[in-house]
Amino acid sequence: MKPSLMVATVELLRYQESDAQTVQDAVAVEEPLEIRLAYQMQGRRVVKPISITMRTPGADAELAAGFLVGEGLVRSREEILSVETPEPNQVVVELRNGAEVEIERLQRNFYATSSCGICGRASLEALEAHIPVLPVTPFPLDPKLIAELPQRAASAQDAFAMTGGLHAAALFTQQGECLRVREDVGRHNALDKLTGSYLLEGRLPLTEHLLLLSGRASFELMQKAILAGIPVIVAVGAPSSLAIDLARRHGRTLIGFLRGSRFNVYSS
Amino acid sequence: MKPSLMVATVELLRYQESDAQTVQDAVAVEEPLEIRLAYQMQGRRVVKPISITMRTPGADAELAAGFLVGEGLVRSREEILSVETPEPNQVVVELRNGAEVEIERLQRNFYATSSCGICGRASLEALEAHIPVLPVTPFPLDPKLIAELPQRAASAQDAFAMTGGLHAAALFTQQGECLRVREDVGRHNALDKLTGSYLLEGRLPLTEHLLLLSGRASFELMQKAILAGIPVIVAVGAPSSLAIDLARRHGRTLIGFLRGSRFNVYSS
Repeated sequence: MKPSLMVATVELLRYQESDAQTVQDAVAVEEPLEIRLAYQMQGRRVVKPISITMRTPGADAELAAGFLVGEGLVRSREEILSVETPEPNQVVVELRNGAEVEIERLQRNFYATSSCGICGRASLEALEAHIPVLPVTPFPLDPKLIAELPQRAASAQDAFAMTGGLHAAALFTQQGECLRVREDVGRHNALDKLTGSYLLEGRLPLTEHLLLLSGRASFELMQKAILAGIPVIVAVGAPSSLAIDLARRHGRTLIGFLRGSRFNVYSS
Repeated sequence: MKPSLMVATVELLRYQESDAQTVQDAVAVEEPLEIRLAYQMQGRRVVKPISITMRTPGADAELAAGFLVGEGLVRSREEILSVETPEPNQVVVELRNGAEVEIERLQRNFYATSSCGICGRASLEALEAHIPVLPVTPFPLDPKLIAELPQRAASAQDAFAMTGGLHAAALFTQQGECLRVREDVGRHNALDKLTGSYLLEGRLPLTEHLLLLSGRASFELMQKAILAGIPVIVAVGAPSSLAIDLARRHGRTLIGFLRGSRFNVYSS
């Protein structure tokens, strides 16, 4: 794999003990990949998109092949005629004539999932057009308050404390009061539960609030936070390149790598 | 949320410094949830499944509502008439008449993603039938070797070392030789890249090998490992309830929570 494709350099503000300095740092690249299947049906070549996944570039043919294995569609090399990359973020897997692929099952039953930030959209551009630009008012952040957020949320993470196996999404006031925490094995689900609980109470958008994520910040999580109107997103883990892009384009504050009194501001 | 729904108790073998004892421990529950949209179209009530997500039970109405926000389909409480749970793992969101939901866009463009382990399957039972039961021969494991796996894989994780923001999947021989490592922002993609690279070389199934996962073990990752024929799966993080179920039903060894010389054997 090529590190040059997998890693991007961004400028960020690094805080430690309330002191900030501008530094360059490496982040993992995240970009959408569309996987297409090509096969013969009744004497005609058919090409069908079967998946879009948010991935780190650099091993796209391998990724597409492994995806087909994991879906139970392909079991051996012989079933694949070729794997081509006609465009940078697209892979076409050509199946050998007669490969017993259950395309019909695939087409009939495939659902989208909340794990895919760009399901239902033809492209990132289409997504961009789809996100309403809510007027977001940035608010000043106290570095000491940021450092305390994980501890303030922890008392509400009942199930994580028991299992060590759950992600959390927590909503705070600007003053750092923890209002609500939701947990799930999937970090996207934890955030959906949180924003969904406010939607059902008629309290969206959350334009005055701060969101804490227990894990990394992906494109998808940023998309969900932006659609819920949240102006400030703090992730305990690393953000992807696309999460940073999205935060900057939509005027959101994105903080990552929160470790004690140290954190990085990727967008503000 | 109800901790009783979110956490399950399992029996496992806990290793520390090569000593093992049987203990009971809590794991995060993972189960599929189908989200359905109900709405009026040309005077008729239509019900369509739009997503299956692997989630931790206990806040299903909130999760479904938040999912619709995150997809840009719903923005306010008024657009939702009701949220019902007709079956334990199904939520039906009834949209108010006239809610401007772009159902057609949804239906036309939704793809499946590799993030969803059960995309394309009507039920877990259907999945079970779909996984071929490869003859797996368990092999004896040396506790000291297990403890060394993360360190042995680390030297190959170039992009993680630079960014701290990538998951890794690594394949080892039974003797603990690290053969190949793949990295990605998505842990499912890292595993797809790994198994896909072997598929393209005509070297599946990997019935003599050991897999190391840098994060948690979900249902989806177990499914991918099983379909690639891998008999032993070691996760640095916690496994979900469903990952454990799947490992036990398919006779795979599943090790989790690998921390120094300490780890848990959930299935063997």
